[in-house]
Amino acid sequence: MTATLSRSTFTGLRCKECGHPYEASARHVCEDVCFGPLEVVYDYEAIKNRVSRATIEAGPASIWRYREFLPIEGDPIDVGTGFTPLLKAGNLAKRLGLKSLYIKNDGVNMPTLSFKDRVVSVALTRARELGFTTVSCASTGNLANSTAAIAAHAGLDCCVFIPSDLELGKVLGTLIYNPTLMAVHGNYDQVNRLCSEVANTFGWGFVNINLRPYYSEGSKTLGYEVIEQLGWQLPDHIVAPLASGSLFTKIRKGFDEFIKVGLVQEKHVRFSGAQAEGCSPIAQAFEAGRDFITPVKPNTIAKSIAIGNPADGPYAIDIAKKTNGSIAAVSDHEIIEGIKLLAETEGVFTETAGGTTIAVLKKLVEQGKINPDETTVAYITGNGLKTTEAIASSIGEPYLIEAQLDSFKAAWAKAQASHQG
Amino acid sequence: MTATLSRSTFTGLRCKECGHPYEASARHVCEDVCFGPLEVVYDYEAIKNRVSRATIEAGPASIWRYREFLPIEGDPIDVGTGFTPLLKAGNLAKRLGLKSLYIKNDGVNMPTLSFKDRVVSVALTRARELGFTTVSCASTGNLANSTAAIAAHAGLDCCVFIPSDLELGKVLGTLIYNPTLMAVHGNYDQVNRLCSEVANTFGWGFVNINLRPYYSEGSKTLGYEVIEQLGWQLPDHIVAPLASGSLFTKIRKGFDEFIKVGLVQEKHVRFSGAQAEGCSPIAQAFEAGRDFITPVKPNTIAKSIAIGNPADGPYAIDIAKKTNGSIAAVSDHEIIEGIKLLAETEGVFTETAGGTTIAVLKKLVEQGKINPDETTVAYITGNGLKTTEAIASSIGEPYLIEAQLDSFKAAWAKAQASHQG
Ligand SMILES: [Zn+2]
Ligand SMILES: [Zn+2]
Repeated sequence: MTATLSRSTFTGLRCKECGHPYEASARHVCEDVCFGPLEVVYDYEAIKNRVSRATIEAGPASIWRYREFLPIEGDPIDVGTGFTPLLKAGNLAKRLGLKSLYIKNDGVNMPTLSFKDRVVSVALTRARELGFTTVSCASTGNLANSTAAIAAHAGLDCCVFIPSDLELGKVLGTLIYNPTLMAVHGNYDQVNRLCSEVANTFGWGFVNINLRPYYSEGSKTLGYEVIEQLGWQLPDHIVAPLASGSLFTKIRKGFDEFIKVGLVQEKHVRFSGAQAEGCSPIAQAFEAGRDFITPVKPNTIAKSIAIGNPADGPYAIDIAKKTNGSIAAVSDHEIIEGIKLLAETEGVFTETAGGTTIAVLKKLVEQGKINPDETTVAYITGNGLKTTEAIASSIGEPYLIEAQLDSFKAAWAKAQASHQG
Repeated sequence: MTATLSRSTFTGLRCKECGHPYEASARHVCEDVCFGPLEVVYDYEAIKNRVSRATIEAGPASIWRYREFLPIEGDPIDVGTGFTPLLKAGNLAKRLGLKSLYIKNDGVNMPTLSFKDRVVSVALTRARELGFTTVSCASTGNLANSTAAIAAHAGLDCCVFIPSDLELGKVLGTLIYNPTLMAVHGNYDQVNRLCSEVANTFGWGFVNINLRPYYSEGSKTLGYEVIEQLGWQLPDHIVAPLASGSLFTKIRKGFDEFIKVGLVQEKHVRFSGAQAEGCSPIAQAFEAGRDFITPVKPNTIAKSIAIGNPADGPYAIDIAKKTNGSIAAVSDHEIIEGIKLLAETEGVFTETAGGTTIAVLKKLVEQGKINPDETTVAYITGNGLKTTEAIASSIGEPYLIEAQLDSFKAAWAKAQASHQG
């Protein structure tokens, strides 16, 4: 491609559908041929020559330990994103009847406590390389937090778009970084359409529109990290939330790439996806045996994954089918129970998307769709402090007491009785 | 001491004032002699023989890479706590006129987004070793979050005490783990007194009362990590918030221990402390040249550091004096501006305690009390999502628009005008 790519292991873009090549600029659609989505092309021989388990282990405790697999040319915008804990979830495993369960916890990701910090770190690094001075996104909340925060750190101007009905934690958690914040009357799909128009008119770098090929590659690190943290082994089964479907496909791509360059031994991994019933177009299509998506109008507390017209839905269905996985949906009540279950058993407080994943995990175990002997990884993608409204009315209240031993003793007796009752 | 200590590098407890030795049980006061506080005793020769930079670097990405310096005997309760990012804060440094500034960000600590996860991981590990089945604490919020979460993971029963006027995020962020939660009419100091009575009556492990000698040692890891993350060097100046004063003294102890066992070259480090004007007994004593604390009634938005009668206040004053540091207090307005400043410049959203630290950092630079050439580390101890009420009315609002290009263009024009205005 261009001379500036000589230092990197990525060589350009190409159409995922027809294979037509494009230069590594800000574009995401196969405009010359078929209007398919574009993806990044790598020189895997070059990667293979440059990386080993040892070089990766000697790298920073962030996604940038995998930089040869990411579409950037120069120095990354490094805010410590990634390399989040993979927690052995013994208590939850026991409760569900599984033998080997892990929680990949991006609820403590840096800087804004969701997996979006991964994709935004990559997208904004590339945006800066491509000369953008203003960056933007259409977001269900987490992406707005992340884009505003990392843009602030990188000194980029930032304007982000969200649906106007978002959780307060996500609005405040964006405004604090002082971007221009546009709250749009409408759902995410309407916000997204508006942003496509703005992208065409304003010449900004939209992380999930014209920078999407670079952006989405950041999610591959959720695959790499799990392999490395399992001691350079693939899991047997993964469960992840489905919004656009992109995360799912990129975890798969991450696994495949590590196999391809010889970092891990090949193994069949089953992929199962989680949706909320109030926005489950992918689960509905999977259930019906369709390979196309019928868009829906979202109505669920799991707003961060409420995408009614998911772009990568067909790819997600394809992966679940090919790997003998499942795609299932759960109710808002089950989502809240999922949040509580994970918190009570493992001490991990996740947002509604994570509650969806845990509730689907539970459902699939009950349906016999996850084998108790499988090493299973559940991806927790965001922190519970972002969606406190969703659970506020469902988790009880403190005992109100006076600062005296007798007052405490009376309350303690009540608490004991209620536990036994 | 006891036979069970043979595997560990800590050998018992002793009085910090008179040196009287005690066995490594659940106790925190020199009951036999002077009623001074107890501290853990280590065999530094044994540590020196066992650890090196290489053995530490090969350890896990958590506080347990330093386990030879921590008062536990067997396997730790490992929830991935610690080894949080040390962020080079170039933008903030420039804004303040400093050359080399770092942010140690415990706002992304695992599992509950504050430095308390460090002390609780150590305390609950020791609690389990000492045979406790119920653990407890008196808390201003963060400690309640952490104790409830890590107890859930460890399968310990948990009852925590908080003042009844705490931020909603901290209440929900405790209840979600399903402990017994007691909200006490009164301030932290009253809660703390009640808990001392309960500790004497109920035989529970109170992390910050009868387990305090073990608990407080966890904060040393904030010293170790900074040294390691600066490339095995000490900083020139640190700024940390002062609540009880314990954090301050333990960062110092961490630095001193690494010097003592030869892991880092000796260097004079200046220690400066941050308080909120609404609860600044240590700053007031420092200002007045007193070495004793006059208790105050807290009244500040920085609730997590609002301790009116800080146990380790005199030690904190001693350290600031001896190292040629400062202790300063800032107003609630300055605290909010501190939160915004850090978010806008570095993309890090901290709670009120962190805003206090940044505001004091700014004040000390303006007063010439931090030299622009000093390598300075500011300790950010908790996440901004925990105290959203404190800033909700101070950070503006989104532009509300329709999902149409014209509506956006009109709002964008307004936003541009307001930026220039
Ligand atoms: Zn094409
Ligand atoms: Zn004594």
